[in-house]
Amino acid sequence: GEALVQRARLETGLSAARLTGEVARTTGQLRMFAEVLGEGSWHGARIDPAQPDRAPQPRVDIRQRRIPLGPVAVFGASNFPLAFSVLGGDTASALAAGCPVVVKAHEAHLGTSELAARAIRAAIADTGLPEGVFSLLVGAGHDTGTRLVTDPRIQAVGFTGSRRAGRALVRAAAERPVPIPVYAEMSSVNPVVLLPGALAERPEELADAFAESLVLGAGQFCTNPGLVLAVEGDGFDAFAARAAGAIDGNAGGTMLTTGIAESYRRETEAVGARPGVRVLARGAQPDTASAGRSLLMAVDGDDFRADPELQREMFGAASLLIRCRDLKHVTEVLEALEGQLTATVHTADTDLDAARALLPVLERRAGRVLFNGWPTGVEVGHAMVHGGPYPATSDARTTSVGSLAIERFLRPVAYQNVPDALLPPPLQDANPYRIPRRIDGRLDLG
Amino acid sequence: GEALVQRARLETGLSAARLTGEVARTTGQLRMFAEVLGEGSWHGARIDPAQPDRAPQPRVDIRQRRIPLGPVAVFGASNFPLAFSVLGGDTASALAAGCPVVVKAHEAHLGTSELAARAIRAAIADTGLPEGVFSLLVGAGHDTGTRLVTDPRIQAVGFTGSRRAGRALVRAAAERPVPIPVYAEMSSVNPVVLLPGALAERPEELADAFAESLVLGAGQFCTNPGLVLAVEGDGFDAFAARAAGAIDGNAGGTMLTTGIAESYRRETEAVGARPGVRVLARGAQPDTASAGRSLLMAVDGDDFRADPELQREMFGAASLLIRCRDLKHVTEVLEALEGQLTATVHTADTDLDAARALLPVLERRAGRVLFNGWPTGVEVGHAMVHGGPYPATSDARTTSVGSLAIERFLRPVAYQNVPDALLPPPLQDANPYRIPRRIDGRLDLG
Repeated sequence: GEALVQRARLETGLSAARLTGEVARTTGQLRMFAEVLGEGSWHGARIDPAQPDRAPQPRVDIRQRRIPLGPVAVFGASNFPLAFSVLGGDTASALAAGCPVVVKAHEAHLGTSELAARAIRAAIADTGLPEGVFSLLVGAGHDTGTRLVTDPRIQAVGFTGSRRAGRALVRAAAERPVPIPVYAEMSSVNPVVLLPGALAERPEELADAFAESLVLGAGQFCTNPGLVLAVEGDGFDAFAARAAGAIDGNAGGTMLTTGIAESYRRETEAVGARPGVRVLARGAQPDTASAGRSLLMAVDGDDFRADPELQREMFGAASLLIRCRDLKHVTEVLEALEGQLTATVHTADTDLDAARALLPVLERRAGRVLFNGWPTGVEVGHAMVHGGPYPATSDARTTSVGSLAIERFLRPVAYQNVPDALLPPPLQDANPYRIPRRIDGRLDLG
Repeated sequence: GEALVQRARLETGLSAARLTGEVARTTGQLRMFAEVLGEGSWHGARIDPAQPDRAPQPRVDIRQRRIPLGPVAVFGASNFPLAFSVLGGDTASALAAGCPVVVKAHEAHLGTSELAARAIRAAIADTGLPEGVFSLLVGAGHDTGTRLVTDPRIQAVGFTGSRRAGRALVRAAAERPVPIPVYAEMSSVNPVVLLPGALAERPEELADAFAESLVLGAGQFCTNPGLVLAVEGDGFDAFAARAAGAIDGNAGGTMLTTGIAESYRRETEAVGARPGVRVLARGAQPDTASAGRSLLMAVDGDDFRADPELQREMFGAASLLIRCRDLKHVTEVLEALEGQLTATVHTADTDLDAARALLPVLERRAGRVLFNGWPTGVEVGHAMVHGGPYPATSDARTTSVGSLAIERFLRPVAYQNVPDALLPPPLQDANPYRIPRRIDGRLDLG
């Protein structure tokens, strides 16, 4: 653990405290999947017993369970060198599903990747698993990744990263002679709506919490609050002034790589130059090439709706405050948004009707809807969805965080009139694993 | 019902008895999904309650449910004008998931399609649903279908038909600015393995049942037994002779369209002309352009493995008997197969060890594994899988028959700290629908 944290600190610029937290997240994630395997619902066991006397035709015995898809290629994220990388959520959920994993090491933390891979190899040796259950692949450029995804033995792909790289992998997988699923978590600007009651009640508290969420980890989170929507007025002005004050001269932070820092500068400059965009505040001028300068901008709702370029993820501590005329205008702006990982609403008691009306709009656009919180911080649990409509991910039907992620790497198989002795244990009459099963459509806890 | 059966009979050449059975299958399917909705597991409700005292950080309240993807385009099959068409399994499962449906009418049974659509429209009026819940689209050629799939409002596609048409829709959906999932059930040759004990014990009984399954409905089933694998010897010869006798001079049947009959002739001629393929028996010479001539061919295992063209679906009453040297050879042939909807094994008591060894090979290649039966006849139930690895379908993670099909049209959404009064009922504390939910990872039956 200690060596891993030190190596990751050197390679990523993230703090030891943050990385120590990530170690706990990573091991907690593995323990969660161990519990999921023990609980047994993941088998998806279903039994429709034979009905030999059914008319006009007897019913055969049909049983269903899920089996692993096969070897999975995993591309880790730069911003979570432990929890979303070699031994991260994709690897954990694929291994839990029974799939061998081949990880393409992220170039931004090769040493951390090798240390994590050694830990996995040691665990494989300790438990007597076949060596092929896990491999780490190191290679520069996109070519290694493309060759991995197009290898006929690979049956699914987990990816976290940029939209450009994610789309390239999706395309490569679709063009294979036998196409395979790609679970790419790509980009999101995570709209936050400040409803009028909340804004009237606590504009400065909201601004402080927003600024804190925005600059956390130099803004390098896929759930970073990149858009804030609110109705114009005194509350809006108070929020904007306080948030600008918090960002103005903010020390910023070291970004993960100079490439990410360069891309952040390029993206923020591009967005800042769009029609109608005003800069409200900038962080302190950085003194190194890999530092990111925090940035708060503002734009009117109509300008935002007219310009799809303003929806681009800037991946860093930059956010766009969108001024709307009224709640209808807020809804129109939300309806113009691409798919998102998260959508957040801040409310006061007087906002509940407005919030109720917004919920269906937010559900259609995001994988997670939050009230009175900030989207950074993704709880690892059974109910979490870290996913959402395209282009937040390439496949909205699932999640890359939380126990539901195991389902990405399974497929159902039915067994018709297979003798009990040959059935896999989850489907045998005696239910030897004591797992929940669906018998004739009804759940049986086992 | 009566008018529908008469119209379908005229349009498809299928018998009134068969079509009456299909009406029952269609209505039974709708009732099954109504039960699934009542049972409530489809919501996928998961609750991880808040833990305000957790250290180092309190845990927020996270709840998850599934919501409909949005409008679904359905392309029905020619061979099931009721159960896999306008009001078939794709429509039933998409409507059950809460998705509006737009059906592209199959040109082979336009009148039947219109009658089915009228029944749906009447039901919509009776129940007061919005009219837009269902539409029928009529238009010649591929252009109508492509325009439907590329319409930005469509969010998923269900398709049953040829590999060529299915792949075209998959491609069109992947190239959209916002790609969408396509569930295409395309083609399968459904290998049947006759193990040595079974072949020694009952070669003629197996041959009679095989011939009956092969010529059923002029062989126009996606689960038609198009490949039979067995080890050479007396049992093999007895099976082949008896099956050839049953096919020889068989009256055949009227195919669904002259186009399908022409394609069947073309495909069987192409397969018959491949190296090593021998014709064992032909049905009677047909006297109309739309009749299909039954056909039994044989080939040695090595010739089969060397020639991918022999895996083509002929869609009609044609099958290829593959002679293998031994069980190892049978396994090698199976391992060379593309993805299939079904894989079947016939056993005697002495075959159980051989069958056990084959099971993992068959699971990896098919969505349904059958023992001592024939793949035609797909039971509609909770445990059925009518699916399988590519190219049997475009998405092996699901099924197009049975209650699991509803999951194709849903996606999960998480709700973080949403006030109980604003939560959707499946996630409210009081569980007003009394549905099964997963609380902190454990199932609660509600």
